[in-house]
Amino acid sequence: MRVGDRHFRTIWETDDGLAVEVIDQTRLPHAFETARLRSMQDAAHAIKAMIVRGAPLIGATAAYGVALQTRADASDAALASAYDALLATRPTAVNLRWALDRMRAALRPVPLVDRFAAARAEARRICDEDAATNETIGDNGLALLSAGFARKGSGRLNVLTHCNAGWLACVDWGTALAPIYKAHEAGLPLHVWVDETRPRNQGASLTAWELGQHGVPHTVIVDNAGGHLMQRGEVDLCVVGADRVSARGDVCNKIGTYLKALAAHDNRVPFYVALPSSTIDWTIEDGVNEIPIERRAADEVAKVTGKAADGSLQTVSIVPEGTPVANYGFDVTPARYVTALVTERGVCKATADGLAALFPGKGI
Amino acid sequence: MRVGDRHFRTIWETDDGLAVEVIDQTRLPHAFETARLRSMQDAAHAIKAMIVRGAPLIGATAAYGVALQTRADASDAALASAYDALLATRPTAVNLRWALDRMRAALRPVPLVDRFAAARAEARRICDEDAATNETIGDNGLALLSAGFARKGSGRLNVLTHCNAGWLACVDWGTALAPIYKAHEAGLPLHVWVDETRPRNQGASLTAWELGQHGVPHTVIVDNAGGHLMQRGEVDLCVVGADRVSARGDVCNKIGTYLKALAAHDNRVPFYVALPSSTIDWTIEDGVNEIPIERRAADEVAKVTGKAADGSLQTVSIVPEGTPVANYGFDVTPARYVTALVTERGVCKATADGLAALFPGKGI
Repeated sequence: MRVGDRHFRTIWETDDGLAVEVIDQTRLPHAFETARLRSMQDAAHAIKAMIVRGAPLIGATAAYGVALQTRADASDAALASAYDALLATRPTAVNLRWALDRMRAALRPVPLVDRFAAARAEARRICDEDAATNETIGDNGLALLSAGFARKGSGRLNVLTHCNAGWLACVDWGTALAPIYKAHEAGLPLHVWVDETRPRNQGASLTAWELGQHGVPHTVIVDNAGGHLMQRGEVDLCVVGADRVSARGDVCNKIGTYLKALAAHDNRVPFYVALPSSTIDWTIEDGVNEIPIERRAADEVAKVTGKAADGSLQTVSIVPEGTPVANYGFDVTPARYVTALVTERGVCKATADGLAALFPGKGI
Repeated sequence: MRVGDRHFRTIWETDDGLAVEVIDQTRLPHAFETARLRSMQDAAHAIKAMIVRGAPLIGATAAYGVALQTRADASDAALASAYDALLATRPTAVNLRWALDRMRAALRPVPLVDRFAAARAEARRICDEDAATNETIGDNGLALLSAGFARKGSGRLNVLTHCNAGWLACVDWGTALAPIYKAHEAGLPLHVWVDETRPRNQGASLTAWELGQHGVPHTVIVDNAGGHLMQRGEVDLCVVGADRVSARGDVCNKIGTYLKALAAHDNRVPFYVALPSSTIDWTIEDGVNEIPIERRAADEVAKVTGKAADGSLQTVSIVPEGTPVANYGFDVTPARYVTALVTERGVCKATADGLAALFPGKGI
């Protein structure tokens, strides 16, 4: 999507095809910088350090990580260890395993000498497909937003989103934000409430930044505010992304999503989850009890990084010295609080039957 | 309560009785400093700038503000304008009006020459009563915590709290934290999940600080985490304070309280609200629709203050430059999500009948 006057994706090959570049998302929103990944280790580090984040982009970066590995050593043993190293970078996103499995399957029959070219082509396909998939999610979600606006009849459509499920989380378009970009481009008057999304503030930094760059009206709020806004009729619908969706429609997404779903349910506000089908984990039914939840470093909670008055990036501590801190990355929203799932195949109920109808042969 | 080895209240008269001192809560948790209030204007500023905060402490500070006014000019006109100036400092806390009304009623019959002494004595009574009231809330709430521990049978009792309703919000003991201090002193093994409470982080800064100073085990979490912890059985009960409670038990409290109440309800976790009876607004029934919600400065959301690596306090911006931000101070938790109200009169259901039974003649 747009950054200033240019169109960007979040990941692209260098001109010589021997490395990839990504937008360094740890520097946003205060600086727009790119990082060059030259090796599988660089790719693993980029995922682990959240230079890239968002389930689809993690998958795409892991795919290029495999490709970079084949350039250095394309042997089965090297690929197996790259698979393990990349898989270990983040425990929750199912796209990571999906992308790695796809790369492994694509490379297995290929002679060693051809593996780099094949891997690069496969990673490129994963990226192009991601962009196309998300654009379709946008079209499918646009119908829901248009219907919401028609129900409202006047004014602007107020949409609440949590975390960043925009193009920065993907290769392009985004998942939750794709319908918003489509609606904005279709001339629908809309306004987005952006949850800041502690502890890493992906909403306040990334979502606000990308909506701002693209010209979509928005307002940043603290994560605590959404319930109040829904009580007061200030939210017409919610749309969020997902890191993993179970076969019956339970939604694992950024910590705090569940609280917004509860508030939406209590106030009869539609709560939509937008996801590519690669996010569905058909092996898991009960998301609340079966999806492992990543615990991350305490410093993400205890410290905040931002721009100081002198323009430098500073990190400050916001808890008393020595305070115990716990940091959970995700939570699971039970399917009963999800109004609908928006996928590239179409929109369905967040139920085993709903998913099975969209994905015949896949369901439970 | 304890700060290091000493016992402190949050507000006390200077030795000469001509001014009051307060703990400067904008400096916590990184520095323990006091501020001297010499005039009504100082008191108003202290409330507005949140040097003091918390409904009961706001009331106590306003009372001393009136007393300081009587020292400068005890005329009815001066008192009327002091009443207005102090009332305008914060729009939500009902204790503010309650304390001002009480001071006005106490001073009206007093000759001008005696008003300063009378006002100081009345403000002192308000403070002493607040401390005694909260200690009684602590005793009443202790019974609920003990029962929760008995139900659990082993391990530690995990209590979640939001914002700061501790002694720093009051004169002493606190409201939500009073039962926790009582339980800790009674030897009950407990652990407190402390919501950081964006945007001003009163949980991460004030609650974590005062629990730490008093030796109560606790862990700071982001506001987004409580729902997940409740789903996983990691929260045995919630206890929060209140800024205003309607005559039927709707609870206006720090923004985000409502979301935790929803999660508690969804997971059958008891959700208790501790409050002195002065917090009850008998004139309001429907809290969601009738209680005005304060909107505060955008910078509270857009900027975060903390301790930099060099030990200095720094303020950093966490949103892209020019990003629109909205800042709502409170939300209202409908009474149906409140398990019980804990007051100095005892524990009651959050219903008009429950409140009327505890406060005969007051109810609706």
